[in-house]
Amino acid sequence: MSLKLIEKRRSFGGEQCKYTHYSEALKCEMTFSIYLPSNKEEKKIPLIWWLSGLTCTDDNFSQKSGFQRLAEKHQVAVMIPDTSPRGEHVPDDEGWDLGKGAGFYVNATQEPWAKNYHMYTYIVEELAAIAPTLVPHFSGEESIMGHSMGGHGALVIGMKNKARFKAISAFSPILSPSRIPWGLKAFSAYLGEDQASWKEWDASELIKEVGMPPILITQGTEDHFYPEQLDETYFLKNAQEKNHVVHYEKKEGYDHSYFFIATFLEDHFSFHMKYLKS
Amino acid sequence: MSLKLIEKRRSFGGEQCKYTHYSEALKCEMTFSIYLPSNKEEKKIPLIWWLSGLTCTDDNFSQKSGFQRLAEKHQVAVMIPDTSPRGEHVPDDEGWDLGKGAGFYVNATQEPWAKNYHMYTYIVEELAAIAPTLVPHFSGEESIMGHSMGGHGALVIGMKNKARFKAISAFSPILSPSRIPWGLKAFSAYLGEDQASWKEWDASELIKEVGMPPILITQGTEDHFYPEQLDETYFLKNAQEKNHVVHYEKKEGYDHSYFFIATFLEDHFSFHMKYLKS
Repeated sequence: MSLKLIEKRRSFGGEQCKYTHYSEALKCEMTFSIYLPSNKEEKKIPLIWWLSGLTCTDDNFSQKSGFQRLAEKHQVAVMIPDTSPRGEHVPDDEGWDLGKGAGFYVNATQEPWAKNYHMYTYIVEELAAIAPTLVPHFSGEESIMGHSMGGHGALVIGMKNKARFKAISAFSPILSPSRIPWGLKAFSAYLGEDQASWKEWDASELIKEVGMPPILITQGTEDHFYPEQLDETYFLKNAQEKNHVVHYEKKEGYDHSYFFIATFLEDHFSFHMKYLKS
Repeated sequence: MSLKLIEKRRSFGGEQCKYTHYSEALKCEMTFSIYLPSNKEEKKIPLIWWLSGLTCTDDNFSQKSGFQRLAEKHQVAVMIPDTSPRGEHVPDDEGWDLGKGAGFYVNATQEPWAKNYHMYTYIVEELAAIAPTLVPHFSGEESIMGHSMGGHGALVIGMKNKARFKAISAFSPILSPSRIPWGLKAFSAYLGEDQASWKEWDASELIKEVGMPPILITQGTEDHFYPEQLDETYFLKNAQEKNHVVHYEKKEGYDHSYFFIATFLEDHFSFHMKYLKS
């Protein structure tokens, strides 16, 4: 285990920590952040995962969302992975929507991505094994949230592991990656042209299955990626057909930024805590 | 008037705006940010000024402090200037603690700084004339807060204009710039070697006068610039001799970062609102 604590900052009574480690799944050095609430009463602590969007690292949510106030208030730990493998030897693309900063939380099968781009396994297996060792008094309960590409990631990871994640939420998520420009580009590159293989990575397909966790989605009406990249029609239609609990809400005048996320994050934390403190 | 709105983002119900304009005081194009609360009840709105620290722009506080939640809660506008003149024709220094990003909120008298580095006049006169035109239902009441170099700026500007600012607060401020390394370097460059001219820009000297606004100062114990750059001894001694209302509080385990500021910003807003809603 190469896990190394490189930063620890007190924040709202708890600790905002940053670690580096060598990832076997990604074949490179990785950085992630985790927030640990003060837990003065030594209670059991659940864990929320946050997945960020295109171009982000683990820093965006840590620095711009103000989530620490809510995590301390609700006494929940928050795990924040990076958005792709990193390092000079890792393949990249000229575009900001493919390669580094754009892992799309899938396991790539195509060259040159197949060696490193296994963000799904990295999060679901490798980080999942590390997180409990870092959270004192971990309750074993987990939920997942994310933004944009990370909203797609939260939905896909949450639904593919529906027994594990008690709730899923997303801000302005990519809901149908197989049907929108960002997803078509990324899935073609990472998964190849056979679109049958895309279905297991598409929230709009996964929602066709039964027994999904409760889902909250918040979308700003002034988001300049909406609806082109973030169209909800097909996802909501499929969810409705299966009678899934999906709260989809639009917020008037809000854009795609962390100003939007910060505004409604309290609602998302409250939603998650309903299912984590059971 | 060259004032131009270049960004407007909804945040916590209000609007986070960014403007550019040509500054006569600084002889360059400048950018500033201002937050306007929703003011649904059309009440009178006071204004808090925030001054940032070394290397910052108007973005750091806007993006990292989470202040918008508090400004909306208290229905107060917040004005965030940049920390120095900007542009390729503006003199700079190799160090990050002099020149651009390090205006120290003084009016420079020495070359090559004297033409542009008039941050005091820029804020106290030029931006002060603009701000009321941007705040609908402005109450006319103002207070000022800041961080590090901006804490120095808030104290100096607040005390030099004690009839205007109802309250002053600072996170980890430079309290005695004439006595610490950052201040000695900047004041020597901007104001020259005659230290008599420094006194009007030094909070520890200004506090010797009578009738100052109430002051709140918060300092983290794990701040790696403390006490070398941020020593409070001389300031507090002088404040006590004049029986000024200075609340100086230390916070165990906190550093110099926005994680620290975000944690205690609610206390600072509450402090200011006591004096702004009178």
